Amino acid sequence: MTLTSPGPTLGVVGGGQLGRMLGEAAAPLGVEVVVVDPTPDCPAAPVVRDQIEGDFDDADALHRLADRSDWLTYEIELADPDLLEEAGDDAGVPVHPRPGTLQTIQDKLVQNRAMEDASVPVPAYRRVDDVDALHAALDALGTPAMLKAREGGYDGRGTALIEERGDAADALAAVAGPALVEEFVEFERELAVMGCKGAAAPGDDPGDVAVDDDGAVDAFPVTETIHEDEILRATASPPRAPDDRRAAARDVALDVLDALDGRGVYGVELFDTGDAILFNEVAPRPHNSGHWTIEGCHTSQFQQHVRAVTGRPLGDTGRRAPTASANLLGGEGIEGRPPARLEGEDAIFAEPRAHLHWYGKREVYALRKMGHVTVVGERGGDVDASLARARELRDGTSFTSGGTD
Amino acid sequence: MTLTSPGPTLGVVGGGQLGRMLGEAAAPLGVEVVVVDPTPDCPAAPVVRDQIEGDFDDADALHRLADRSDWLTYEIELADPDLLEEAGDDAGVPVHPRPGTLQTIQDKLVQNRAMEDASVPVPAYRRVDDVDALHAALDALGTPAMLKAREGGYDGRGTALIEERGDAADALAAVAGPALVEEFVEFERELAVMGCKGAAAPGDDPGDVAVDDDGAVDAFPVTETIHEDEILRATASPPRAPDDRRAAARDVALDVLDALDGRGVYGVELFDTGDAILFNEVAPRPHNSGHWTIEGCHTSQFQQHVRAVTGRPLGDTGRRAPTASANLLGGEGIEGRPPARLEGEDAIFAEPRAHLHWYGKREVYALRKMGHVTVVGERGGDVDASLARARELRDGTSFTSGGTD
Repeated sequence: MTLTSPGPTLGVVGGGQLGRMLGEAAAPLGVEVVVVDPTPDCPAAPVVRDQIEGDFDDADALHRLADRSDWLTYEIELADPDLLEEAGDDAGVPVHPRPGTLQTIQDKLVQNRAMEDASVPVPAYRRVDDVDALHAALDALGTPAMLKAREGGYDGRGTALIEERGDAADALAAVAGPALVEEFVEFERELAVMGCKGAAAPGDDPGDVAVDDDGAVDAFPVTETIHEDEILRATASPPRAPDDRRAAARDVALDVLDALDGRGVYGVELFDTGDAILFNEVAPRPHNSGHWTIEGCHTSQFQQHVRAVTGRPLGDTGRRAPTASANLLGGEGIEGRPPARLEGEDAIFAEPRAHLHWYGKREVYALRKMGHVTVVGERGGDVDASLARARELRDGTSFTSGGTD
Repeated sequence: MTLTSPGPTLGVVGGGQLGRMLGEAAAPLGVEVVVVDPTPDCPAAPVVRDQIEGDFDDADALHRLADRSDWLTYEIELADPDLLEEAGDDAGVPVHPRPGTLQTIQDKLVQNRAMEDASVPVPAYRRVDDVDALHAALDALGTPAMLKAREGGYDGRGTALIEERGDAADALAAVAGPALVEEFVEFERELAVMGCKGAAAPGDDPGDVAVDDDGAVDAFPVTETIHEDEILRATASPPRAPDDRRAAARDVALDVLDALDGRGVYGVELFDTGDAILFNEVAPRPHNSGHWTIEGCHTSQFQQHVRAVTGRPLGDTGRRAPTASANLLGGEGIEGRPPARLEGEDAIFAEPRAHLHWYGKREVYALRKMGHVTVVGERGGDVDASLARARELRDGTSFTSGGTD
């Protein structure tokens, strides 16, 4: 390859915080970013070359994006795989991860089956299209159980906990559409692994590796993810778990990657039951559970995604030091969508080794992801102090229209 | 303070690589950047909110910048201090570092005198306005000696080495204007220190520190700078020098800061003669000698400048690991200004812990700064291996129109 100015262009479907942090990471590499996003002046807009205003399934916008791009990727699963493939084909531009992978992941039933086919341990589940099927599934799986919409759910939306058999009809109405029901997993902790598929591994001689080869597979260090109400609140890496649990999680994540096609980073979410590592779900893009890598690793998940998609060798995924992060979410008490104004962030700036990331969203609403704070610990120390401090710093902030959560 | 969206705006005079890296650093903090630069689509343009096209001394452009900004700063000494002050005053917007400091620094004679007044050790020098004065100065200082234009010199431009008395007239013609002549310093090495003046130090309770207080002073770890033909080629931190030399350099740099007014980072360049640390020059802005801090320190010089100018507490200046950098300069043999196309950069991507920074300049010319590569070493290791590798990676690149230097 050569470096040019203006550089090659990475077209990204979605211009939220992930698109913004992709833009921040791409610039030093000489890669320009153009995003498609429906929100005028989306979070990525101030730090990327251009925003094409359009919905994620706006064929015209995607074609205009492809015409300006050297590669296409996406930072949101709402991207339309068929349109992406068509826009890429028409412009002669590769799409990574592959649209087929996006299709697999968009339907949780198809996703689970693909994982089973790759020998990834998946919680017991059943497809349910009506109440009778759900009752039958609950007879087999027992209660409690988790009902999950097959498509479109995220951050707790599209899921319903079924405490007992009598909740079945209400739960099915709540998820409103094709669904699957999973055994309730009693986990000790949740873990996440940012997997990477690239053209070559760090240290490989790039001359030996063709971009279209199967390429290299790697993973960032395993991360503990802490959810409340199914929304990620904080992360800690290394996880507070025995070494063998971390090794097992990494192995499962690498098996998950086997089932997926195309270059990029993948956020693999797992349950650790103490006895087993079970697959939860995977996102074919940078993921909230990997934000800590910006300061905590030698290469960030965002730079890694840019490297991978553009066919560069993967970067070094090593962890610099124990690192924790906490999300800045709109408080649950916030009503409507008032302008975003965060107070109490001075303490983050005043804390050595704390790092603020503000996403630039104009409006805040309850539980909206508005930013995050990362605390890097002492090398060789443990992660508890960093996690406690990240949470304290988060708890010290509030939106003028309500608290943070 | 509060964080808002859109965030507050930092107006920057100059949109070259320093403006670009300021933009990359400002985004996570929620600070938007607007630059004034005469080059259409300047290096900073793709990663900042907006570029106002205009010369650095275009009063209208500066007023438009001030009207959109919450703070003004500059990344180039060619900024006009009087216009900056006027634009800031008219819009009610603070300028940092203070325009008076910029004025002091723009004239090397005034700069040297200010340093003497602050008890900073300065090489012996004389003001010279004509050949007679130069001859008299050479009688006092001896030869060789360095003739320096008082204004406008950088990267070796505006300086002339006087080997012997007979060179005086030619040297004076070469620098073409008011000048000073300095004793020739036989140094063992050159050192640089990125000094920082901010509203508060890391860990200070921001509630206790008013932004308009004298605030906090700090410095990044001392860096060895390696020049050829007076152009910076590579840096190494820690420097390959005894501990007492580093401590002495830091002390001198802090004295230099005493003579300067306003918040921001300052690039202090020093000579280490083995016996003494002598002042060379200071730049009131992020500096090439501090690029390694992006990966090598807990806070980068660019984030530090944003923090300082915007009145946030300074970040942690600690070094993560021994770190070296090498500049990617247009080869000396390049003629004219061909389009910039760099080859051989694949090896940089393939090297674990090597980091490329491409500045996005459209055209290359001989010795133009086009990018840099940073290599982060092992914690506790020494810097030689990183420096050697950074230079090898640089030497492995070339522009299609000629080599790199």
